[in-house]
Amino acid sequence: MRSVNRARRLTFGDLIREHRRSYPDAIALVDGEVRLTWPELDERTNRLADALTSTGVGPGDRILWLGQNSFRIWELLGAAAKIGAMVCPGYWRWAAPEMAYAIEDFDPRVIVWQDEEIGDTVGKARAELGGEHRALWLRHDAEGAESYEAFLASGSPEDPQTHVDPDSALLVIYTAAISGRQSGSMLSHRNLLAMGASAAWMGDIGQETAFLGAGPMFHIGNYQFWGIPAFVHGGKNVVVRRVIAEELLPVLAAERCTHAYLMPPTIAQLVALNREAGHDLSQLRASVAAPVWEGMVPTDTSRFTRNGGGEGRGYGQTEVTGFAVTGAYGGTGTGNAGRPGPFTAVRILDSGGRECEAGEAGEICVRGDLVHLGYWNRPEINEERFRFGWWHTTDLGRREADGTISFLGTTTRMLKSAAENIFPAEVENCIESHPAVKEAAVIGVPNERWAQDVKAVVVLRDDTEVTAEDIIEHCRARIASYKKPKTVEFIDALPRTGGYAKDYDVLDSRFGGGGYPGGDTLGAGR
Amino acid sequence: MRSVNRARRLTFGDLIREHRRSYPDAIALVDGEVRLTWPELDERTNRLADALTSTGVGPGDRILWLGQNSFRIWELLGAAAKIGAMVCPGYWRWAAPEMAYAIEDFDPRVIVWQDEEIGDTVGKARAELGGEHRALWLRHDAEGAESYEAFLASGSPEDPQTHVDPDSALLVIYTAAISGRQSGSMLSHRNLLAMGASAAWMGDIGQETAFLGAGPMFHIGNYQFWGIPAFVHGGKNVVVRRVIAEELLPVLAAERCTHAYLMPPTIAQLVALNREAGHDLSQLRASVAAPVWEGMVPTDTSRFTRNGGGEGRGYGQTEVTGFAVTGAYGGTGTGNAGRPGPFTAVRILDSGGRECEAGEAGEICVRGDLVHLGYWNRPEINEERFRFGWWHTTDLGRREADGTISFLGTTTRMLKSAAENIFPAEVENCIESHPAVKEAAVIGVPNERWAQDVKAVVVLRDDTEVTAEDIIEHCRARIASYKKPKTVEFIDALPRTGGYAKDYDVLDSRFGGGGYPGGDTLGAGR
Repeated sequence: MRSVNRARRLTFGDLIREHRRSYPDAIALVDGEVRLTWPELDERTNRLADALTSTGVGPGDRILWLGQNSFRIWELLGAAAKIGAMVCPGYWRWAAPEMAYAIEDFDPRVIVWQDEEIGDTVGKARAELGGEHRALWLRHDAEGAESYEAFLASGSPEDPQTHVDPDSALLVIYTAAISGRQSGSMLSHRNLLAMGASAAWMGDIGQETAFLGAGPMFHIGNYQFWGIPAFVHGGKNVVVRRVIAEELLPVLAAERCTHAYLMPPTIAQLVALNREAGHDLSQLRASVAAPVWEGMVPTDTSRFTRNGGGEGRGYGQTEVTGFAVTGAYGGTGTGNAGRPGPFTAVRILDSGGRECEAGEAGEICVRGDLVHLGYWNRPEINEERFRFGWWHTTDLGRREADGTISFLGTTTRMLKSAAENIFPAEVENCIESHPAVKEAAVIGVPNERWAQDVKAVVVLRDDTEVTAEDIIEHCRARIASYKKPKTVEFIDALPRTGGYAKDYDVLDSRFGGGGYPGGDTLGAGR
Repeated sequence: MRSVNRARRLTFGDLIREHRRSYPDAIALVDGEVRLTWPELDERTNRLADALTSTGVGPGDRILWLGQNSFRIWELLGAAAKIGAMVCPGYWRWAAPEMAYAIEDFDPRVIVWQDEEIGDTVGKARAELGGEHRALWLRHDAEGAESYEAFLASGSPEDPQTHVDPDSALLVIYTAAISGRQSGSMLSHRNLLAMGASAAWMGDIGQETAFLGAGPMFHIGNYQFWGIPAFVHGGKNVVVRRVIAEELLPVLAAERCTHAYLMPPTIAQLVALNREAGHDLSQLRASVAAPVWEGMVPTDTSRFTRNGGGEGRGYGQTEVTGFAVTGAYGGTGTGNAGRPGPFTAVRILDSGGRECEAGEAGEICVRGDLVHLGYWNRPEINEERFRFGWWHTTDLGRREADGTISFLGTTTRMLKSAAENIFPAEVENCIESHPAVKEAAVIGVPNERWAQDVKAVVVLRDDTEVTAEDIIEHCRARIASYKKPKTVEFIDALPRTGGYAKDYDVLDSRFGGGGYPGGDTLGAGR
């Protein structure tokens, strides 16, 4: 009955095969001068698959991309999909030692690299590895011998017709520094197809979609908003190498992009540039940050924006194929992250695997078709993170009374008071709900008997007066007593790393933090 | 690593568990006086699952429903989903011998039956079976002993927490008379979830959807348009026992239904009734036959209707979980059925399993998440129909040059001329493309040397004149020569069974048809 099961297995490669037939004249990919129809993409991925097979790449083998955005990442995904291999688009800003680490960890059979802008770094990484690595190196921004194009051209245009399991890994994204090193989250064919179908619903994506993929392709965001849903529906992916507003604007107009992945600062630049250029951008509907367009494009009517109360909101991570919980599902409510979509179940679990009551904070755990296969080459971490049959995100959340989910912060920072685990994010969330508090950070200070005491560092709003005792009382009424701060410090502003995340290292050294479980400074929860 | 895999398994039961948490106050089901919230439905399906387990129902076991539409069919699906069992909603208009046949074939452990309207037939079927059948009989339209409600109340409200495989059977629908007997198409959890997600995209379904399920629940149509997508998204399913326009109208208005499964004659009745009743139906958006509403409801803006050129179009069968190919995907084109959606691949294959060229007719074959598990208790048929790793629909189709698919008819009627198989649907389609032809039917007449000759029976449009030779020449230019009719008869109208399907039996007896492969009259292709 093997042919029975095969008939229910649809892979990422099958999408390309189908679109070749369903949309014989439609454009699949645009990148600079390159324009590929679906039949052309199907043929190029066949050639690439055959060439990869000839060099010994087979099911479970790995291909690493070291370059900026390119249509060739899509081609590599298509080719790998047809032979059961996996592709990691590496982060092109990696320093040489990070690149060398990724190569050693991912152990790719083929590395496709870019000389422009990052050739020096790649060279240093290769030197660092010495002669030890077996990979075949292919340069993608060149012609001739050892180039990607020559390699592809050497393959047969016939479909390899290999049977591939849709539950095998296809796209690998390095993320989530665990014990100080990044790990590759393995996303399967099924993960991507389920995400594509649900994101198409969220974003009003169809075959008519033209998506400007200006987000980095080493990050899940650009795939979900809206690269994969457009691909899944036979729409057009317009790839840009990197974000330069002057280059983006004419592409956005010429390709009549309906959707784009752009950050607000870039949108502001585009708006300024277009005052002079005067392109018609009225076809652009969903841009992730519509209000910034200042009337230059119509209101974003995607469910992601519309149901989210006029803005996108959600919770996710690479390991659940992006936003698995959003405001698109059932509309806004108490929680800041919305609700799970149709391929997802969420439970808020305590450390014993028991479900928390509504209103109680615990770890956000996820089940369903969007949950990744685990991290490449991290069997122990995978085993632990999948305990009780749920993917443990290491993020702290709460189910609100109306069913929506609040994302509270990470559980990877943890304090210890006697036998109790305390997550700073939960305590901070409680303190920040005090009307006089602008922001707060919680650290642990060593206590010989109880391991640590909870200390809150608080920034008040202008013209408010609150005592340490007020803050402590506020917490006593709202969270378990052992979680409330024992001491409170008031400062003018929290130190932040790179202007963004709270800098706990600075707070620890300034206010005597330490004694964290598992180490002296940052407490890694696991 | 079992817990790793479990975290990616989402079942139909998990949907109810999740909605209980995500939509604690929302209504899941309405049926007359009954209104169940998601938490209430979750608890009732737990009780039912426990009661079923107590009577020995386990994974793979079967439950048969013999009654009209009811919210209890949804409950049984939910309970069966939680313990790995399957549910067949039988056709309440079955005659007693058909009912007895279904009971023997499906071999259910539990039969839930209805006394009202069909109690006599059920009684006759039971008498016909004698004491031989082991099933537990539960009456659903009664209270007290041996009633469905008493049975449900006997179960525990605790979640059974059984691990269920999403690729196991859940919903079984009897369809497709093969060798003269119907077979139960087994649809899995995954089939229903994938269909729900893609139909939600097609129909603009979300949590705000209120669906009036007036179509029969023994048929896939009512589940796809739009019962399952509403259920999957946590929307409201409004169940009506059967179609009585006078009863439907106030429900449609009171429940503020946004979607409904209604046939045009019923809509015409509703429109007539509402001229007097004057209900506000402006919330109704997708009704499958919007034009009939005569301005009483807004234009249907679902992608199914909008992209289909103002009307729904598609191709499907129960065995591919409904319409797997529709005009919603990429818009209209040459083919009458549109294109496959994101969970589906289609190939037009010849009898040797080779793909037909665009423009060439062959069997429509399907792969993907919508392909059913096979027919219950029909291993040989399943093996054959899944050959080459594709589900063979037994329907004839063609891929057009623009990538759209034309449904041409069934391959289960087949003629034989020498060694060649000829599908009447293909020849009829060719003849009907002649501008003077209104409709045509093709039969086989016995030929001692060649087995059969092709005979066309043709109805011309008013005021046209065409000779038999014209028809034959028209075909000669368009299809393989052996397929063209040898003789042509002209008549005023084709006989039809029940006013719908072409009645080939009448045509055979009137024009000398016979000698079909495998039998004297209708040629069963397999």
